[in-house]
Amino acid sequence: MSNPTAAVIIIGNEVLSGRTLDTNTQVIATKLVTSGIDLQEVRVIPDNHKAIVDTVLAVKDLYDYIFTTGGIGPTHDDITSEAIADAFGVPLIRNREAYQIIKDSYHKRGQELNPAREKMAYLPEGSKLIYNCVSAAPGFNLGNVYVMAGVPHIMQAMLEFILPTLKQGKPVRSMNIDIMLGESLIAVEFAGLQKKYPEVEMGSYPYETAGKHATSLVLRSNHYEQLESAYKELDMIAQAKLNNFKH
Amino acid sequence: MSNPTAAVIIIGNEVLSGRTLDTNTQVIATKLVTSGIDLQEVRVIPDNHKAIVDTVLAVKDLYDYIFTTGGIGPTHDDITSEAIADAFGVPLIRNREAYQIIKDSYHKRGQELNPAREKMAYLPEGSKLIYNCVSAAPGFNLGNVYVMAGVPHIMQAMLEFILPTLKQGKPVRSMNIDIMLGESLIAVEFAGLQKKYPEVEMGSYPYETAGKHATSLVLRSNHYEQLESAYKELDMIAQAKLNNFKH
Repeated sequence: MSNPTAAVIIIGNEVLSGRTLDTNTQVIATKLVTSGIDLQEVRVIPDNHKAIVDTVLAVKDLYDYIFTTGGIGPTHDDITSEAIADAFGVPLIRNREAYQIIKDSYHKRGQELNPAREKMAYLPEGSKLIYNCVSAAPGFNLGNVYVMAGVPHIMQAMLEFILPTLKQGKPVRSMNIDIMLGESLIAVEFAGLQKKYPEVEMGSYPYETAGKHATSLVLRSNHYEQLESAYKELDMIAQAKLNNFKH
Repeated sequence: MSNPTAAVIIIGNEVLSGRTLDTNTQVIATKLVTSGIDLQEVRVIPDNHKAIVDTVLAVKDLYDYIFTTGGIGPTHDDITSEAIADAFGVPLIRNREAYQIIKDSYHKRGQELNPAREKMAYLPEGSKLIYNCVSAAPGFNLGNVYVMAGVPHIMQAMLEFILPTLKQGKPVRSMNIDIMLGESLIAVEFAGLQKKYPEVEMGSYPYETAGKHATSLVLRSNHYEQLESAYKELDMIAQAKLNNFKH
């Protein structure tokens, strides 16, 4: 009865060089929460054949779903499809439906296919297409691996297509209390609450606001009754703590 | 003569849940580039003892440097120090210097130590301190692993302390040409240029501006002469291509 699990593989030299801030992880993570799928791990790796093959093989059997982003465009540095084919030991072949979609899409814009564009129709044998309403060129699904574009709005369109096809779990809900105190002043009581509610994941996140210490105390669980009870107790703890510091 | 290599481990449920957008990776990546250290991989993992131990053991011997962020604060969910101690098979002990720094820092603010604050002085035996001028509580270095805070401005202070202590490589420089064309229209020529200059890493990044397709063609290398030559050729290719499309 536990939730399906997932890992994300971000493929892109541009993230590892610092050129690009990866925002795909956060979007995927947020969407998976609402589907009740637990994201357990993210790996950012380069556009390198061996790195992609090795990483896919390393995580594929550990989680129910693997999502990749990046490397499925028309240029020479887009090598994800070929690497996934190798990871699965299947040939890269021209997918008839993908080819037609890509060809039609360019025709509509008054343009023709060229070798670079046609390259996007080559997918591992046995792939199912992941449609996208933004740029037409599809992603693909092979086994438990879902291969998406790296461009954020295209990735999002693909993700929206994928999500309804997955096993849904019981979504983790999140509740939080922000308190105008440094986290070390409520740490002991918060740890006690965590012990009392092992099914609720409790995190403490310090920040500063208007030059003062503050802490966001976050409770997460898909055991909703325990989440509610823990939240009520935490609220009382926080109130008592603040009153204590006022006097 | 190749550059030192590195991996980053981002430890934090808040990133995997989508609550927090990880910006530490980009900051570390950018700083490593200027130090000539090649970031090869990033992993985002939960605040889970086994996940931390397993991940550190999996990557420690693959790269010259491992940087971790997150999980060294005063609350019960801060378990990185203990996990690193276990990964190295050493006990977690109260570090005398860390204890004194933390104690002094609270004293200066007219506050006392408490068990939560004192917890931050417990480090794996044999650790060297990573000082930080922001929040006083130090990170630590053990073997080739550098353990930093997760709060961005504290992480950055620690990183600034660490960088001068590392072997420096020959920094990778980056040059780019942006062209107002979809990437599939320059893909063949760009692939040809990549073949001619194998020492220059070439990436193509499409985007839209004012509703039109554009592409950023990025060249990266620490072979500076080849980088310059490749850039000049790419510039000519891009000019010719644009003239072609004007006529």
